[in-house]
Amino acid sequence: MGPITLLTDYGPGTEHVGALHAVLASRASGVERIDLAHDVPAGEVRWGAILLAELAALAPPGVHLAVVDPGVGGPRRAVAVRCDGGRMLVGPDNGLLALACDAFGAEQASEITSPALLGERVSATFHGRDIFAPAAAHLACGGVLADLGEPVDVATLARPTLPAARVSDGAIEALAVGCDAFGNLTLLARPDALPGAGLTPEDHVWIVTGAGRRHRAIVARTFADVTAGVPIVYVDAHDLLAIAINGGDARAILGIAVGEAVAITR
Amino acid sequence: MGPITLLTDYGPGTEHVGALHAVLASRASGVERIDLAHDVPAGEVRWGAILLAELAALAPPGVHLAVVDPGVGGPRRAVAVRCDGGRMLVGPDNGLLALACDAFGAEQASEITSPALLGERVSATFHGRDIFAPAAAHLACGGVLADLGEPVDVATLARPTLPAARVSDGAIEALAVGCDAFGNLTLLARPDALPGAGLTPEDHVWIVTGAGRRHRAIVARTFADVTAGVPIVYVDAHDLLAIAINGGDARAILGIAVGEAVAITR
Amino acid sequence: MGPITLLTDYGPGTEHVGALHAVLASRASGVERIDLAHDVPAGEVRWGAILLAELAALAPPGVHLAVVDPGVGGPRRAVAVRCDGGRMLVGPDNGLLALACDAFGAEQASEITSPALLGERVSATFHGRDIFAPAAAHLACGGVLADLGEPVDVATLARPTLPAARVSDGAIEALAVGCDAFGNLTLLARPDALPGAGLTPEDHVWIVTGAGRRHRAIVARTFADVTAGVPIVYVDAHDLLAIAINGGDARAILGIAVGEAVAITR
Repeated sequence: MGPITLLTDYGPGTEHVGALHAVLASRASGVERIDLAHDVPAGEVRWGAILLAELAALAPPGVHLAVVDPGVGGPRRAVAVRCDGGRMLVGPDNGLLALACDAFGAEQASEITSPALLGERVSATFHGRDIFAPAAAHLACGGVLADLGEPVDVATLARPTLPAARVSDGAIEALAVGCDAFGNLTLLARPDALPGAGLTPEDHVWIVTGAGRRHRAIVARTFADVTAGVPIVYVDAHDLLAIAINGGDARAILGIAVGEAVAITR
Repeated sequence: MGPITLLTDYGPGTEHVGALHAVLASRASGVERIDLAHDVPAGEVRWGAILLAELAALAPPGVHLAVVDPGVGGPRRAVAVRCDGGRMLVGPDNGLLALACDAFGAEQASEITSPALLGERVSATFHGRDIFAPAAAHLACGGVLADLGEPVDVATLARPTLPAARVSDGAIEALAVGCDAFGNLTLLARPDALPGAGLTPEDHVWIVTGAGRRHRAIVARTFADVTAGVPIVYVDAHDLLAIAINGGDARAILGIAVGEAVAITR
Repeated sequence: MGPITLLTDYGPGTEHVGALHAVLASRASGVERIDLAHDVPAGEVRWGAILLAELAALAPPGVHLAVVDPGVGGPRRAVAVRCDGGRMLVGPDNGLLALACDAFGAEQASEITSPALLGERVSATFHGRDIFAPAAAHLACGGVLADLGEPVDVATLARPTLPAARVSDGAIEALAVGCDAFGNLTLLARPDALPGAGLTPEDHVWIVTGAGRRHRAIVARTFADVTAGVPIVYVDAHDLLAIAINGGDARAILGIAVGEAVAITR
């Protein structure tokens, strides 16, 4: 039996994460639990989807529980998906699971509605505790998808909107799709956007924020390539273009919010 | 052997939480550890007591270690309590354990003073590491209460002050007793306070803060019932009345502190 | 086989911590993992070194993985160290491991460069995932140092600069070397600095910040010795001199940054 991994926007070490662990420990005794990330910015489904596909691939095959769910209690479905090779995904059907479905090969899915599984009381705002964790425990203990609820056609699962970067000579426009605890901002742009725009390491560039503020930066390979306090444009560990400040918080200092379009120009 | 659960106000992922885990891993090898919550606002014993009773009930029976301890090093006792059904509680005797004692049925208690258990050096400020974790490990390994110190009459254990909500026609006054990482505020008021005040979903109400600021809000079932940015009054996953903002941080935006009295009025 | 412990400045519950856990779970299946601390202030190698030596000593002997690595991707070496008694240390050779080497007795060390271990793709900014976690998993599964890379003379391992406190009659000058989630500030000064300066509990003193601001404080044994809001100078649970405010955040309220020199004067 593989582990259960957890990825949420509940905030690290919060009561909500603890409730998931408590339910999983009670219902799937002896199954290892691995916290993949709980610092997804609140409601950022796109970033959650990117992290889930990437971090679940690093973990052993198992049940990958994910909850970034701004529409909790609304009409979006709660689903579980079985993928090629035995990985299972459990979470809201709002696009959060889509990139992991692509990466692992979604084969079969089910809504999670079974009264036998969920019991009589399901809260309107905490489906992680009341729906997703019970479903993940069920699957981790060898339970089958069919016991969770009605089948779902995997082709109907929601997908996130991931706008492609626009690359031209000397300019890259891309979405700031995520941010980590250091304030490093990941852009929705592949590494080849740099050569595509004719930019190479040590080039001086402008970062233009969504609000039109302009900051000087250097194309670099790593933080240590520049002196402290200097903004860099680099390829980060997600293999995406990113913005950071050596020894500083780029999000705060440059004033860039997740979800904002950013331009890198010569 | 059941697990050891941990609930503190030490902050998630901090050195203090790590010290507890290290001591427990050394002294109770092979015993599962479950983090229930480490984001209790600093020193908020009442909220810790509510969370402990609720989260421990979701977890398998075991040793429930809890430390929210503004009086550390002062005269309050360190105690362990055995409850009906085998659950054990370990923590400061400042009211933190009281609601879990009620929920699980406190049967027997002991002070934690044994020099054999605690060793020669006990710090004045970190009883979690030096007193509570060793006691929890002792109990998790099958050790008995009597080895911890002198017996304590369970009737003498401290209780928190939990003022009841005042409900009248068109008005509810209640304490903002807790807050989560999203900024959602839990009030010390049962769901029936809403019909008691003649309020029903979709009603427009005022939220009046302790400082007298007034904010427009809607009585709702879940966040998705209103547009982004709108404050709601709802029954939260603790089955208590609560205040949130769809997609926002109610505590920050509305300016309400934990421990403050709030009014909901028509 | 002992556990793998983790200490980083990645931030609690972040994707980066999750990536380490995922890699370790995949490569060292069945080995216990213990989070010691992930809230080291970003890049604070000195404080990381102090916490690592202290927290690893509380944990069972095993592989102690530590990453506080402002020079990631630069010339600093990645190393693993075998200590007396079987403890292993893994991390950047920037001083982070030095105090644990002293405490446990470093015997043998190796650079971590093996292509067989690291695979073909190593990112420039996330050596935790790509270098240190694979090395820790290798050692935790019984792998030998020699397989990681070239031997390193333990005498050449980097050491942090830890300036001694200056103690005179009525005055202590010391570095604010660390800070916890409560805002309590640890100074690089041993408890005997207090009697050395002729200061005893209940003395009224001045705290003089690096910026020259002066705050009234009381020498105390624990928080509860003073009324709420009063700054205290005390011996903390690291057995070092420290500054706190009963019920408040000393770092924020007194305006003291980690890395700043502070004076305590009569």
